[in-house]
Amino acid sequence: MKAGPSPEEIRRHNLGTLLRFVHLRGPSSRATLAEAMGLNRSTIMALTADLTAAGLVREELPRGPGRRAGRPSLVVRPEGTRVYVLAFDLGVDRLAVARVGLGGTILDRREATRTRGEFDPNETVGALAGAARALTRKAGRDAVCVGAAMAFPGTVRRSDDVIRFAPNLEVGDVSLGDALSRRLGLGLPVAVCNDANLGALAEHVRGVGIGCDDLIYLHGDVGFGGGIVVGGRLLGGQDGYGGEIGHMVVNPGGRLCGCGARGCLEAEVGERTLLAYAGRAESPDVSGRDAIRAVVDAADRGDVQARDALHRVGDWLGRGVANLVNIFNPGMVVFGGTLRDIYLGSAAQVRSALATNALSAPRENVKLRTAELGDDATLVGAAEFAFADVLADPVEVLARLRSPEESRV
Amino acid sequence: MKAGPSPEEIRRHNLGTLLRFVHLRGPSSRATLAEAMGLNRSTIMALTADLTAAGLVREELPRGPGRRAGRPSLVVRPEGTRVYVLAFDLGVDRLAVARVGLGGTILDRREATRTRGEFDPNETVGALAGAARALTRKAGRDAVCVGAAMAFPGTVRRSDDVIRFAPNLEVGDVSLGDALSRRLGLGLPVAVCNDANLGALAEHVRGVGIGCDDLIYLHGDVGFGGGIVVGGRLLGGQDGYGGEIGHMVVNPGGRLCGCGARGCLEAEVGERTLLAYAGRAESPDVSGRDAIRAVVDAADRGDVQARDALHRVGDWLGRGVANLVNIFNPGMVVFGGTLRDIYLGSAAQVRSALATNALSAPRENVKLRTAELGDDATLVGAAEFAFADVLADPVEVLARLRSPEESRV
Repeated sequence: MKAGPSPEEIRRHNLGTLLRFVHLRGPSSRATLAEAMGLNRSTIMALTADLTAAGLVREELPRGPGRRAGRPSLVVRPEGTRVYVLAFDLGVDRLAVARVGLGGTILDRREATRTRGEFDPNETVGALAGAARALTRKAGRDAVCVGAAMAFPGTVRRSDDVIRFAPNLEVGDVSLGDALSRRLGLGLPVAVCNDANLGALAEHVRGVGIGCDDLIYLHGDVGFGGGIVVGGRLLGGQDGYGGEIGHMVVNPGGRLCGCGARGCLEAEVGERTLLAYAGRAESPDVSGRDAIRAVVDAADRGDVQARDALHRVGDWLGRGVANLVNIFNPGMVVFGGTLRDIYLGSAAQVRSALATNALSAPRENVKLRTAELGDDATLVGAAEFAFADVLADPVEVLARLRSPEESRV
Repeated sequence: MKAGPSPEEIRRHNLGTLLRFVHLRGPSSRATLAEAMGLNRSTIMALTADLTAAGLVREELPRGPGRRAGRPSLVVRPEGTRVYVLAFDLGVDRLAVARVGLGGTILDRREATRTRGEFDPNETVGALAGAARALTRKAGRDAVCVGAAMAFPGTVRRSDDVIRFAPNLEVGDVSLGDALSRRLGLGLPVAVCNDANLGALAEHVRGVGIGCDDLIYLHGDVGFGGGIVVGGRLLGGQDGYGGEIGHMVVNPGGRLCGCGARGCLEAEVGERTLLAYAGRAESPDVSGRDAIRAVVDAADRGDVQARDALHRVGDWLGRGVANLVNIFNPGMVVFGGTLRDIYLGSAAQVRSALATNALSAPRENVKLRTAELGDDATLVGAAEFAFADVLADPVEVLARLRSPEESRV
């Protein structure tokens, strides 16, 4: 029960709010910022001056069409190439690293496919660090990395980023973030976060869920993850393990799940199940996403077994969604990763199961949507997570910028 | 993306924070308040003076033992009899109304049993208003009612308090809050909120869940309700329907639920199911709570059918809890209402199902607890909900106190 903030805390908060606004909404005039933040223009000017001095934004003439006659109004623009974060996505099938600028543009990226079942933490961290170094070398000499975060397909403890559970990627209780941070040598920690949680964050701030403060994101890969936004904030739970929707048991005594239980949503809807129902074995030559797409394509072309397979998993998916609708009363449920294709191929079954199993009150206003950010949702989410510190308190970053040897590449 | 608060907003926030502190923690010295709020003692003194002038607190010598030699330090004490709220509990089996003072003491109360299946909104509102008037008449002449709220066993739309779903209390889309507010004639709105949501709030701020910001409260009555606290805030969802845990389907194709679906947690664990398993018909002469206690008592005395009945529902209860533990990673799960007794009679089955169905990471730190506030949890929650406005912004209430004919009884 703390007292309200001090004037200095309010100034830091306002600097962060202004920066966050132009990061998410793009270049904005002082008038727009003044109205959005409920401040007068002289205060906006002072805040902008501080952020400009720190190298986080600049003021310039608006670009492109839409300029009116007369003296054009300056816009505040994030320093989108100079200030950046490193975003890592350690997927079951691929590794991806991106340099993402303030404002959200992916400036540069590296990707590599992974072989399933093989996972050497040291080797993986080495590969990620190597790719990141290649990206940072290509950044300008005055560019500054202000954060780093990694999406991981498993359960991550918030207090120390230790991986606790990753059934589709064999790894013990290790801290990949610490290892990667050491290998990067940027003097920056690397936050590690559940991939589906980051997908939820990404769709909430940059995708289909903009403006929806109660959102459930379902992410299909080999496994079935989830990320939940409650009242505008990502649900973490006591230790950061929140959102493990894939291990909600929807079918007691059903299919065996990688977690040891039976009938989890992941077991009833996951990639392996769909491929088994469709009579298609997993193949080391075809990625999971491609195999799922092949089933959806076959169903579209009239393949009865493929269509039946989609309908079976769609029914369970709808039952899972119904439970979540009853529990959370969300404004939107978003299907991402391979679940995007599965949902598109079984929307009628999903909606039917939802109508049967959800209460009418929470059901009547919920929107079912597919993810907008595609395969990049987790990477975009990692970037947003990496930007969180600088957006919460740019003053901290100012201090960091003043001792460049600690953070500059 | 609003800017930080103005100095006046901070003052109001600080007044509310101080009032909330003494409301929840009891009489406190200026030194304690200064430390808890991170303010200096002169600021605390100024805030206390404002709240004293408004008649919300008073400063006095500490009572009872523990006084040390020398000049005793004054304590700030909430005006626990002068400032009060009206709390209503419209249960399936009973009606309760209480006058609850600032600080949380139930000053006076009225209760009446209800006959199940019979529900005339007009008559009920009349009975509640009559009881409330009797309570307010007994309050002192200078006593002030600062809020009113009602617990209701169904789904309530946040925007207008309209009841949307109440399978155990036949009622259409009506606004009981408006009707009760008019009948009370206090010039105060009556907020209506789901009973289990209020139970969660009560256990979070005054019961077993104090200090636990991620808590799930399961409430058994005829139905099975839930209230969820995420990051210290009650989960409401987009429209206020959040927390309908009882309609999570845990057993597809299972027992028919009042909502029309099959295998809901409410259908598998609810009062009717337990009594049916135990071979005891529902009786109009025995309240639901008493009937459940009779089953638990019989099981304790060695009644095999009663014990088996408890074990069967305990297994489903544990499966439901496992799903919630995976989804929310809560610090605590609290069993309230009749579920308190059911849990105590089947804890081994609950824990076993939890161990089988929940992931080890979110399971390892979760505490399973019984509610501390007993049958009063929903009533206490309604009182806390009614106090919310005055604790958020006592300045508003000061203004109301200045035009006494609007709010005084």
